[in-house]
Amino acid sequence: MKLAIMGAGAVGASVAELASTYGHEVTAIADSNSAAIDPDGLDTDAVLTSKRTSGAVGNDDPDDVLDGTYDVLVEATPTTLGDAEPGYSHTVGALERDRHVVLANKGPVAERYDEVRTRERNSDGRVLFDAAVGGAIPVLTTINDIGRSNVTAVRGVLNGTANFILSRMAAESLDYEHVLAEAQDLGVAEADPTFDVDGTDAALKCVILANVLFDGGYTLSDASTTGIRNIPGTALQLAAEDGRTIRLVGEVVDDEICVEPRLVPETGTLAVSGTQNIVQLHTEHAGRLNISGRGAGGHETATAVLGDISRLG
Amino acid sequence: MKLAIMGAGAVGASVAELASTYGHEVTAIADSNSAAIDPDGLDTDAVLTSKRTSGAVGNDDPDDVLDGTYDVLVEATPTTLGDAEPGYSHTVGALERDRHVVLANKGPVAERYDEVRTRERNSDGRVLFDAAVGGAIPVLTTINDIGRSNVTAVRGVLNGTANFILSRMAAESLDYEHVLAEAQDLGVAEADPTFDVDGTDAALKCVILANVLFDGGYTLSDASTTGIRNIPGTALQLAAEDGRTIRLVGEVVDDEICVEPRLVPETGTLAVSGTQNIVQLHTEHAGRLNISGRGAGGHETATAVLGDISRLG
Repeated sequence: MKLAIMGAGAVGASVAELASTYGHEVTAIADSNSAAIDPDGLDTDAVLTSKRTSGAVGNDDPDDVLDGTYDVLVEATPTTLGDAEPGYSHTVGALERDRHVVLANKGPVAERYDEVRTRERNSDGRVLFDAAVGGAIPVLTTINDIGRSNVTAVRGVLNGTANFILSRMAAESLDYEHVLAEAQDLGVAEADPTFDVDGTDAALKCVILANVLFDGGYTLSDASTTGIRNIPGTALQLAAEDGRTIRLVGEVVDDEICVEPRLVPETGTLAVSGTQNIVQLHTEHAGRLNISGRGAGGHETATAVLGDISRLG
Repeated sequence: MKLAIMGAGAVGASVAELASTYGHEVTAIADSNSAAIDPDGLDTDAVLTSKRTSGAVGNDDPDDVLDGTYDVLVEATPTTLGDAEPGYSHTVGALERDRHVVLANKGPVAERYDEVRTRERNSDGRVLFDAAVGGAIPVLTTINDIGRSNVTAVRGVLNGTANFILSRMAAESLDYEHVLAEAQDLGVAEADPTFDVDGTDAALKCVILANVLFDGGYTLSDASTTGIRNIPGTALQLAAEDGRTIRLVGEVVDDEICVEPRLVPETGTLAVSGTQNIVQLHTEHAGRLNISGRGAGGHETATAVLGDISRLG
């Protein structure tokens, strides 16, 4: 398939890098200021090198991407709240042209799910977004496989940065601020870690899950969200004395979406360590299904994007 | 879809019980001696009650099932080695009539995979068998989702009975024979536990995985299989002193299929407890994906069968 990639950060660049090994061709890559467009297929190595060295992916106009030659628009611009722009307009633009959209961006399906689905119904294109929920963990695909009506609840650790910080705080008896600085040095936390440590990222993923399970109607404002900033190191030590630890747990149960730090057994399923994520699907007839793996990372998320693209093929 | 169910044990009965909630109709149920057949749909409650009270599912001839009215043959007779009969003939019989087959029975795809695939190519019917590998864990579907060429190795704990025994031996410092008797009392182990404790069941699952990953060519004789009968309780205690425990681990790596007891970290991903199963998929670009859940049980396996049926719909 021919791919147009919006966003040239870690995920967009990784999709470009891996596309050919999955049998696809990249006909456009754009960041917010520049674009490289070639209906016959780009030399992705050259484009990514240009981005690294000059800061621009090419000399074309990003506004020309949507009208170009492509089967699938890969939306990998940063997630934004509220109007979810520019991801939402990119999504709608591709659907209006009867093209498929694969989202790594959480915004359009967390904040404007119902609109996206309405636009999709009026298009020959489809919208898939497994990468937006679990990185490399195929959460939505698995829900689809077992049948969404058989899933009674979802619970999980959905943010690798917060989990890394809590794991380190527990293992080394260190304070939040100290571990955050370390995580930033390692590139595990961003310079502005707000989305991760305040629980927003995990909440967006839960909102998307709720939209999928209950056919829409949810936005971030429906989630009750508490982050990890105010957890003292002593809380983790006290928990450990009792064989427990603290994890930032997100859940979708009945009509409620909640993300908050919770005590969990130290050796329990939810106590994944480091940047791992885990999703538990509670099912009607088959107990609890646990899926864990790398929830973020350029290559990991790109793999999920390419998985969605294969399903469109 | 209309289902003909071969085998009226825990899995067959559970498929019959749940079929209507998944929107399907059961037109035949057979065990080795009797059958109930009705092209307009059976009263499955009545059939299962008859099986429980009289030992026979009905007054029809099991040999008439294959020629009946059905879209999917559910093969849930006991797994046999070597010629994999009668499961293999049931599978081929349905394919010759251009019907789909969903296997809970491991035999046909472990022992005669290449023949099954050849027969499938000459049929309008397809053969799916996710239930044969991981019970409620959607292993094959997940491999399909992430692309089988992206899976570099599979490792896992694939037998709930053996895992229950090892978990109990470690937790209670008990001997194998003692825990086995307890497991039999609880119905976790069968009267003849050979398949489970000798590693045969786990090895069959690994053989199926190898056939799927490498496009056939494997049978049980290609697996190196060691069971858990000879593990002394002291071995688990020694392991625990070192923060480790013993699990019956199956793996498919390169061309090798191996099932054997291994030392694993007590808090590690593979150290699932009780009757839980876990499968680790090592991927090319996305690290390791872990899926755990109930690997066996009538309802659990039936859910996987019904999942496969949905994919055929």
